[in-house]
Amino acid sequence: MSATTVATTRAPREPRNGVDTPNLLATINAVKEMPALAKFQFRASNKWVSGTHSKGTISGFYGAGQEMEHNSVHVFDVDHPAVLVGADNGPTPVEYVLHALAACLTAGIANIAAARNINLTSVESTVEGDIDLLGILGLGEGVRNGFQGIKVSFKLTGDDPDKLRKVVEQSRARSAVYDIVTNGVPVEIEVQTG
Amino acid sequence: MSATTVATTRAPREPRNGVDTPNLLATINAVKEMPALAKFQFRASNKWVSGTHSKGTISGFYGAGQEMEHNSVHVFDVDHPAVLVGADNGPTPVEYVLHALAACLTAGIANIAAARNINLTSVESTVEGDIDLLGILGLGEGVRNGFQGIKVSFKLTGDDPDKLRKVVEQSRARSAVYDIVTNGVPVEIEVQTG
Repeated sequence: MSATTVATTRAPREPRNGVDTPNLLATINAVKEMPALAKFQFRASNKWVSGTHSKGTISGFYGAGQEMEHNSVHVFDVDHPAVLVGADNGPTPVEYVLHALAACLTAGIANIAAARNINLTSVESTVEGDIDLLGILGLGEGVRNGFQGIKVSFKLTGDDPDKLRKVVEQSRARSAVYDIVTNGVPVEIEVQTG
Repeated sequence: MSATTVATTRAPREPRNGVDTPNLLATINAVKEMPALAKFQFRASNKWVSGTHSKGTISGFYGAGQEMEHNSVHVFDVDHPAVLVGADNGPTPVEYVLHALAACLTAGIANIAAARNINLTSVESTVEGDIDLLGILGLGEGVRNGFQGIKVSFKLTGDDPDKLRKVVEQSRARSAVYDIVTNGVPVEIEVQTG
């Protein structure tokens, strides 16, 4: 690491791209001192309405050593479209996964660009997930239930294109949802009937 | 397979649990005849707002051989909470993943119960995802970015508890989001700068 690099790394950061960069870097330093602060638990709950229609709620979570609440309680409808014998009261579950992937990569892009003193003017993305429903319909031996592949297409404007590409690559390397979706997570299901 | 089983399988189905069971079974048969109908592509798009705040849109998809649109365009805010240096304009990306998982399993439960002539009166669930943010903050060598584990807890009421448990198990075995989240999906990222 050269002296110049050290100087750049230590330079005071201004808020940039709407990111409170000084606070972001202070938070990272605080967590470095006290790693237990980094243990979070996120949650969602769901209530079946009728058919494939359900309502999900996102509200509380645990983090930084305490129970916390979002500013407001978020309720989202989910359903299957008519072509899949639902009533289309909301997006399908798999579309919410694509939405989450785009949003996670985008938040990372904004944070990483700010930490690197790179200005963004726009970040847009589309995510496409290909799925063969022979899997979930139980009609295709060896056809998986989930997406066979996902493609994310980003369009960014801002500073130097090369730097922007490196920011996207670093966001991918540090994205929670990218990790979940590409590498999988152990899921335990508990059932109570009554 | 016994004669009784065959008779049960062939019995005409009534709509049940809000599921249009005759239409569901007819759709499965139609896809059996013409497997290309099962090829779907779901999509989401995203536009960065500021900081970690972005807006995702879910609207069109491809399926059953044609371009289709949901009844309405769905727009969802995403952000990080203040404790993670965001402005809490919406749920975090990872919470949308938990939400999707609960909704997918719930839709499957309703469909499978209907196909098996089992009545549901309520289905509720909570999903908890544990995450150590040392991963995404780049502070923990070997700490993954995503959830380390997810726990789904279902409470169901309706017909015979044993049958309800088997319905949940079959929903797990045929869930698109459960497959995505537990087994992972290849993700390609394309970047255009300008």
